[in-house]
Amino acid sequence: MDRFELHPRLAADTLTVAELPLCRVLLMNDARYPWLILVPAVADISEIYALDAADQARLWREVSAVGEALMAYVGGDKLNVGALGNQVPQLHIHVIARFTDDAAWPGPVWGQGEARPYDDVTLSRRIEALRKRFAALEL
Amino acid sequence: MDRFELHPRLAADTLTVAELPLCRVLLMNDARYPWLILVPAVADISEIYALDAADQARLWREVSAVGEALMAYVGGDKLNVGALGNQVPQLHIHVIARFTDDAAWPGPVWGQGEARPYDDVTLSRRIEALRKRFAALEL
Repeated sequence: MDRFELHPRLAADTLTVAELPLCRVLLMNDARYPWLILVPAVADISEIYALDAADQARLWREVSAVGEALMAYVGGDKLNVGALGNQVPQLHIHVIARFTDDAAWPGPVWGQGEARPYDDVTLSRRIEALRKRFAALEL
Repeated sequence: MDRFELHPRLAADTLTVAELPLCRVLLMNDARYPWLILVPAVADISEIYALDAADQARLWREVSAVGEALMAYVGGDKLNVGALGNQVPQLHIHVIARFTDDAAWPGPVWGQGEARPYDDVTLSRRIEALRKRFAALEL
C-alpha cells in the first residue's frame, strides 16, 4: 500500500488545522462558510466502506466531535456533513456550519460560486481558535 | 420526548424499503439516481451529534452497510453520503449511488432539476431487490 499523501486539490484549497488519531482536519480557505474537511490518513481509500470497521468508527467519532465543536465555536444554524468525492477521489468528509443567511442557504455549498479567501488575520485567528477546541476533544 | 414520526416531506417523496435496528430506510421516488435516505427512528433529533454515542455508532454502521449494498446492487461509480437537513429538520442521511453520466455529475444531486418518479414496475422491482439485500446485512 502507498503512503498517505494529501490530494493536491485539497492541499491547494485548504490549510491544516489539526491531526486527530485518524484524520487530518483542514480548513477550506473560503470565508463564505465555516467549512472543515476531514481526511483519513490512510492511502488509496475512496469510499467510507473501504475503511476497516475500527477506522470507520474512528472516522465518525471524529466527524461528530469536530462538527459539534465547530457549531459551538461559530454558532451555526445547521451542520452539513457530506462525503461526495465526485471530483477528488481521495476520501474526505466535508463538515460545514451553515447559517440561514449564508450565500447558498438552503442549498448545498458545493459548486456554488467562487471561494472567497480569508484575510490573513482572520485566517490565523480562526485556525488558532479551532486548534484549541480540537485539542480539547476526547477522541 | 415525542414519539418518532416521519417528517411529512420525507413521507411524500419516498417509499419505505426496510427497518434496520436504528434507521428506517427510504427510497427517493426519483428514477434519475439510486437514492436512499436513512432516518434514525428517534424523535426530535436534527444533528448527528445529538444522538447518544451508541446510536451514532449504529447510524454509521447502517449507512456504510446500506451504501455498500446499494453500490453492489447498481454498480455505481461513486457513493455520495450527506446529512444536510437545511430544508427538512428531521435528521436524515442521504446515500446516493452516482454515475459519471448521471444528470448532476460531478455536482451534488440536491436542488438539481425535478424528481422523475419511477414507473410502478421498476419501483416495486427495485424495492424488492433492495429489501433482499438489506435483509442479508449483519447489523
